[in-house]
Amino acid sequence: MENFRFYAPTYFAFGKGSEKSVGELVKRFGGSKVLLHFGGGSIKRNGVFDAVTASLKEYGIPYVELGGVLPNPRSGLVYEGIDLCRKEGIDFILAVGGGSTIDSAKAIAAGVPYEGDFWDYYSKGIPVTEALPVGTVLTIAAAGSEGSPDTVITHENGMLKRGGTGEALRPKFSVLNPEYTCTLPPYQTACGITDIMVHVIERYFTNTKDVEITDRLCEAVLQAMIEEAPKVIANLNDYEARANIMWSGMVAHNNIVGVGRAQDWASHNIEHELSALYDCAHGAGLAVICPAWMTYVYKHDVNRFAQFAVRVWHCDMNFANPEITALEGIARFRSFLKSIGMPLNFAELGAKEEDIPAMVKTMGLGEDGTIGGFVSLGNKDVDAIYRLAL
Amino acid sequence: MENFRFYAPTYFAFGKGSEKSVGELVKRFGGSKVLLHFGGGSIKRNGVFDAVTASLKEYGIPYVELGGVLPNPRSGLVYEGIDLCRKEGIDFILAVGGGSTIDSAKAIAAGVPYEGDFWDYYSKGIPVTEALPVGTVLTIAAAGSEGSPDTVITHENGMLKRGGTGEALRPKFSVLNPEYTCTLPPYQTACGITDIMVHVIERYFTNTKDVEITDRLCEAVLQAMIEEAPKVIANLNDYEARANIMWSGMVAHNNIVGVGRAQDWASHNIEHELSALYDCAHGAGLAVICPAWMTYVYKHDVNRFAQFAVRVWHCDMNFANPEITALEGIARFRSFLKSIGMPLNFAELGAKEEDIPAMVKTMGLGEDGTIGGFVSLGNKDVDAIYRLAL
Repeated sequence: MENFRFYAPTYFAFGKGSEKSVGELVKRFGGSKVLLHFGGGSIKRNGVFDAVTASLKEYGIPYVELGGVLPNPRSGLVYEGIDLCRKEGIDFILAVGGGSTIDSAKAIAAGVPYEGDFWDYYSKGIPVTEALPVGTVLTIAAAGSEGSPDTVITHENGMLKRGGTGEALRPKFSVLNPEYTCTLPPYQTACGITDIMVHVIERYFTNTKDVEITDRLCEAVLQAMIEEAPKVIANLNDYEARANIMWSGMVAHNNIVGVGRAQDWASHNIEHELSALYDCAHGAGLAVICPAWMTYVYKHDVNRFAQFAVRVWHCDMNFANPEITALEGIARFRSFLKSIGMPLNFAELGAKEEDIPAMVKTMGLGEDGTIGGFVSLGNKDVDAIYRLAL
Repeated sequence: MENFRFYAPTYFAFGKGSEKSVGELVKRFGGSKVLLHFGGGSIKRNGVFDAVTASLKEYGIPYVELGGVLPNPRSGLVYEGIDLCRKEGIDFILAVGGGSTIDSAKAIAAGVPYEGDFWDYYSKGIPVTEALPVGTVLTIAAAGSEGSPDTVITHENGMLKRGGTGEALRPKFSVLNPEYTCTLPPYQTACGITDIMVHVIERYFTNTKDVEITDRLCEAVLQAMIEEAPKVIANLNDYEARANIMWSGMVAHNNIVGVGRAQDWASHNIEHELSALYDCAHGAGLAVICPAWMTYVYKHDVNRFAQFAVRVWHCDMNFANPEITALEGIARFRSFLKSIGMPLNFAELGAKEEDIPAMVKTMGLGEDGTIGGFVSLGNKDVDAIYRLAL
């Protein structure tokens, strides 16, 4: 096990009616004037906007609205939000929505006290050490941004999709009411489940030995998803399944299932080019890329993939030939993704073979750059993984 | 799944050399003068005392020593610590040791700003909302007190062993270097492992339906213990096994494996009378009580005990008669405890049948009082469980 630090001080209020505590929580964490940040109009239709603003009013907290966050959130609205916060003297950002809205809120929070261009944090990989406090009211179970220090933004100049991070970005509080996720259609629900599972998988495949507790915690989240996903796809209003998935999204990404080990993250990097270029859902892109990545790298550690197959997918171990078990695990993962309605290849996603060279180039690895903590991948490998996903 | 709040803002520094960050962490969390609280002299022999005081000196933080915490920590030293802190103007309590030292530190931390008797928090179950900040340097993997808001103290007036709790008691930081646990003898190591497992079991057996993610997380910690315990009993210096057990102790008790469900805690309550009366190790008492409790209550939900047997102990499910599977799971738990050197009955623990009525009485349930969230137990049930453990 590697040395590590773990600090996840987000306050979670979970369950029915939890959105009523927003005003109390903004006050507890020092907010006196709020930027209320959101996406499209769905939060005004499903009641969460009314509940949140009522709670803010109850505690006498003024707010300024900034809607319009798109999936794969863009830099333009971030710049607008930074200007608005400075002009209005805002000291707390409240994101109401899914991962895109939260990521956009984090970018604004980082940008307000920063003298330079907020994009520095994304393009140069500088950790964010100072930011306005952020709170969230989550309405989509997927990104785990409600409990993580991470944010992903697409810059409209070149459509570059890049991640930023920093402890200052971890939300002070997050309010999770699974009822508000029940209006999410099956496809978007499945995209979220895929994202949650791949957040775990990025941490699971490691070269660090002897991290049994973290292995088991990873397997726990994956098994819970395998159990709950079919229930919610069959019945979108299954509160219990929605609740399990929503909390799993947080557990999958606050790093409690990732400490003490090197992590991979190649699939996320490779996928980001897809969703940047085609504006597809991140989870759908991961469903195409992650199994292809597995097929490309599994020989690096056949026994680890066999463990994945046996413990997560309950395959019988082929002791004479563990490679057969390893491949069976990947096959079951693909079948599962297909069963919940995810695309498995470029054609199903609407991506094109001829764009591969451009995506490899935009990733910006150059001659010698690599991604991936489990298997180190250069341009040629990334190209090959895209082609395995055709 | 039940509504819940989860807030676990302890900062963890884990691994070799992590104790060198103590000075930095005390400073980060606002300490300017420290009570250095510890047990016997072992921390002066194994180097951790020197490392911690060197780090405090490096950051210019003065400290006052208060050693002498006993296993099953007593009220007398708590009163002494409260007086000392007030006299010396101490603003931060640093516990260096195991769960007993941390629990004693929490009691002092609660007592210093409280005008009444600190024991009120324990005897009356008032949650602690104000306390001095506490940091810990953990040297024994067991109690999980390094990441929990809980504390257990034995009052010398009547040898009453009672628990207290309150978010103000959750440590600001905890430093976990598994190397310092390597000097712990096999018996105490096994007691710690048992305590960790029973912390999970108290949360696992619930009447709340559909909490799959928490079930799986519980099963993950238990399986990790089953994997790692034999390694460390065979080789006390197995750093990797020590590291897995040490981190599991935190995961088992900061409530990440317990949210969204009613919990039980009868075994802990029933055990407390044993360790209060005989001054035995808490983990050893749990090894005697918990399987007896299981035997007494399993018929309340045979399928849940069958799940425990199949998922945790990898028993084959007897579909024709799940009760056989349920009993096999309990039997394997007992065998496991025996294999790591734990006592399984009163005789092996050194407890006496004739003391049962007195222990039942001291528990103070009275005519109508009950314990246990899974199965509600009164005096007669507690008496019967003690007798099942004879």
